[in-house]
Amino acid sequence: MSQALKRRSGGGAARRAARSGIRIEAAPVPQRQIPLNEMLSAQTLDLIEANADTVLEEIGVTFADNPAALERWRAAGASVDGERVRLPKGLARKLCATAPERFTQIARNPERNVEIGGDGFVMAPVYGPPFVRDATGERRYAQMEDFRTFVKLAYMSKWLHHSGGTVCEPTDIAVNERHLDMLMAHATLSDKPFMGSVTDPSRAQDSVDLCDILFGGLNDRTALTSLININSPLTFDATMMGALEVYAAANQACIISPFIVGGAMAPVSVVGTLTQVLAEVMAGIAYSQLVRPGAPVIFGTFVTSIDMNSGAPTFGTPEATQILCGAGQLARRMNLPFRSGGGLCGSKLPDAQAAYESANTLNAALMGGVNFMLHSCGWLEGGLVASFEKFVMDADQLGALHKLAAGVSADEEAQAMDAIREVGPGGHYLGCAHTQAHFQDAFWRSDLFDHRPYETWAEDGAPDTRSLAATRVQTLLNAYTPPPLDPEIEARLVAFVEDRKAVLRSEH
Amino acid sequence: MSQALKRRSGGGAARRAARSGIRIEAAPVPQRQIPLNEMLSAQTLDLIEANADTVLEEIGVTFADNPAALERWRAAGASVDGERVRLPKGLARKLCATAPERFTQIARNPERNVEIGGDGFVMAPVYGPPFVRDATGERRYAQMEDFRTFVKLAYMSKWLHHSGGTVCEPTDIAVNERHLDMLMAHATLSDKPFMGSVTDPSRAQDSVDLCDILFGGLNDRTALTSLININSPLTFDATMMGALEVYAAANQACIISPFIVGGAMAPVSVVGTLTQVLAEVMAGIAYSQLVRPGAPVIFGTFVTSIDMNSGAPTFGTPEATQILCGAGQLARRMNLPFRSGGGLCGSKLPDAQAAYESANTLNAALMGGVNFMLHSCGWLEGGLVASFEKFVMDADQLGALHKLAAGVSADEEAQAMDAIREVGPGGHYLGCAHTQAHFQDAFWRSDLFDHRPYETWAEDGAPDTRSLAATRVQTLLNAYTPPPLDPEIEARLVAFVEDRKAVLRSEH
Repeated sequence: MSQALKRRSGGGAARRAARSGIRIEAAPVPQRQIPLNEMLSAQTLDLIEANADTVLEEIGVTFADNPAALERWRAAGASVDGERVRLPKGLARKLCATAPERFTQIARNPERNVEIGGDGFVMAPVYGPPFVRDATGERRYAQMEDFRTFVKLAYMSKWLHHSGGTVCEPTDIAVNERHLDMLMAHATLSDKPFMGSVTDPSRAQDSVDLCDILFGGLNDRTALTSLININSPLTFDATMMGALEVYAAANQACIISPFIVGGAMAPVSVVGTLTQVLAEVMAGIAYSQLVRPGAPVIFGTFVTSIDMNSGAPTFGTPEATQILCGAGQLARRMNLPFRSGGGLCGSKLPDAQAAYESANTLNAALMGGVNFMLHSCGWLEGGLVASFEKFVMDADQLGALHKLAAGVSADEEAQAMDAIREVGPGGHYLGCAHTQAHFQDAFWRSDLFDHRPYETWAEDGAPDTRSLAATRVQTLLNAYTPPPLDPEIEARLVAFVEDRKAVLRSEH
Repeated sequence: MSQALKRRSGGGAARRAARSGIRIEAAPVPQRQIPLNEMLSAQTLDLIEANADTVLEEIGVTFADNPAALERWRAAGASVDGERVRLPKGLARKLCATAPERFTQIARNPERNVEIGGDGFVMAPVYGPPFVRDATGERRYAQMEDFRTFVKLAYMSKWLHHSGGTVCEPTDIAVNERHLDMLMAHATLSDKPFMGSVTDPSRAQDSVDLCDILFGGLNDRTALTSLININSPLTFDATMMGALEVYAAANQACIISPFIVGGAMAPVSVVGTLTQVLAEVMAGIAYSQLVRPGAPVIFGTFVTSIDMNSGAPTFGTPEATQILCGAGQLARRMNLPFRSGGGLCGSKLPDAQAAYESANTLNAALMGGVNFMLHSCGWLEGGLVASFEKFVMDADQLGALHKLAAGVSADEEAQAMDAIREVGPGGHYLGCAHTQAHFQDAFWRSDLFDHRPYETWAEDGAPDTRSLAATRVQTLLNAYTPPPLDPEIEARLVAFVEDRKAVLRSEH
């Protein structure tokens, strides 16, 4: 234990970080001490719940190419017609009741364990982009080296609690081996919790097996939170369900998440979309509980609006905020952890459009009660692109969310009556005792934005945010050192990956 | 009347606008149908109110160089010691009780009249910058022509309900004449309501006199809402109070607004700052009611956080959001209209920093219950700069606030059960009847942002938001035609301004 602690303190890392002025810090998961945005009335929520039950009973959901799932449903009392599963009213909600209200996802550094649910707000980076955009402004296919860079940036980002999953698609690695390299990057370059593969049930199993090595035996502890998308409307495909079955059986967490471009995969109205979202999530979570009652899950919602002219998904819009907040209310009524939000935007560049759209979504996520925020940082161009600069821009804003979540102190020191007395009319607070005692931590401080005098800034070349962000990316990467890992475990991980790759190549 | 209506329809304007694809529209003031962000507990609000009363009683406020004000205070039961006015507990709040809960500010186009207070959310442009920044990226001193350009842009902006006041400082006009040219620009280039001068009591009187001409006799109708800053901490200077006295006597509205850089003009804590804000606003509003009971006022709050390293004010920070929301709660407890917020930012460019900071503030203003939002658009560099591009960026975002404020419909059409039935599992909503019926207005649509496919956008030169905004500025200005004005009234306005300028020059 003392050996482990010594390793964790990372002498080399600390020295290098000290030289760069960058400290490797990780903020605890913020617990909201503020009221949430309860945008929909209880009456509207009742209506949505009743309608969702009607959808499940009348229309039902499709479990495609999955006879075992149909068998489970039949046994649970659903009506199965071909691949269509119809649930009598109340059944889905009843089955969902065994899902835990919150759960702990362990990290290999126990200080980085996260509890998901309740008032907590866990933040994880962007997931899924096939492209990256770097400081040169070039947009190109992502590679494994880019993936590692994002994992390092996430490790260096104080306000990220989670290393995420497919931070970008490493297109230079064979599709059937990719997941192993991605898992290794999360396991070795970071000590924060991470996500497993969902692109095939066997890859989900690889994810579980790798964690079993990393954590010295999982013993039913939850070490993975993975993203199970629903193929909206109302369809559960065999690949995603196969991964869900692996994870649920191993007590690993799944985000059950409709993936909806509004007006295409769901009705154009907020309440209609929420009805479908609820029906889908209830069916998915109910199914997870059929696989293993008590398996940890998250009520997921990923809904964008659509630009009806171009058909492009749009982000940071009022309808997206309304759906996010409404879905959060529905999740809380089911006592389930809630996933949504992130620094979502449609912009192709890390410019003002990107920032308006992302800030709108980040604020909605805070106030909408999100417990697990995927895509917290780095997302660009509707999720097609992971941007290094956008990553550090958004990651910086997450600090503001932490401070907001903490709420407002009203203790005697915060009342500051002595300061008001000391300064009096026409005075100045900068020198007073209260200010001197608190100025270091009174205000949240951006690590990125420019607050220099105009002249100083102009002499420095008048950098815009993108340019400041490019500099910060380099500063963080220069200060990076990997968190220490037991060499024996690392060797076993390497051997596992080599063995699996050999098998996969022989199958190929 | 029919003549006036004919003029208002503006045949030339309509034709020109049609050619450009730009319609001259003005959205009604949105009425919030959503719950507000009640960030502070009732207990904390009680505490702040009690402490503010203590501040007024123990410390008091200074009314500088204003013997008449001291006399009014003495007569009202305050204790006056030199220029220091101390109010027995409860007095300020009692005097504030005659201030109206809401009031109507008339515009010369009656369709543009605004009611300020209640659930309404009136949006006005940036106020006060000595510099402008234009599409070339150049930062320079503002001139009268820039001022006129901003008034035109505000007139062309659908989501702005108000033409504002000093949209920038026209530094090419003599200080003692400037207010006349500014008032004329608002009165002739726009038909939206506007603000009066506060830089001297005589200029406030000029503002009232000009409106008396413009409106064919004011007869106690409120035609001006003007910005009375408090010289925080706890000081009311003679210039601002002189303007307030003129306006209140004429039943014109004043925003009574502490201007606070936190940590400099108020304590570094949220609750301490709110205590001082409340004490100052109560003293200011109480004074307005001593001048004329029932005079319309707005509970103003302009508070920024501070970068303790550089001393620069910072915007879009969590503390600013907390103070905004808390001040809104205090204003509602006093049944007074509330002013705060805007597209505030510290950034020197209309870049991502500007947009993150502005979006944070705009969202806080929506949820914090702001009734009158100054600086809604165009603000840059801590208010030193008015930016044409930032103006249209923020103004576009105001549309999203309108949609959010409207809340979520849950009627049968919004429930969309028929659409869900029609499409079914695995189907597609784009072609269904419900989507076809609603796609035009289902989603708020940006008039600025880029949602084109990557390739189309790249072929078009890969424009960033700033570049798109520069194009929109030109499109709006090209489509601009002034709203028609009765030539007789215009002639009287011109004569009034000429007369006043002649007098002012002779005094000079």
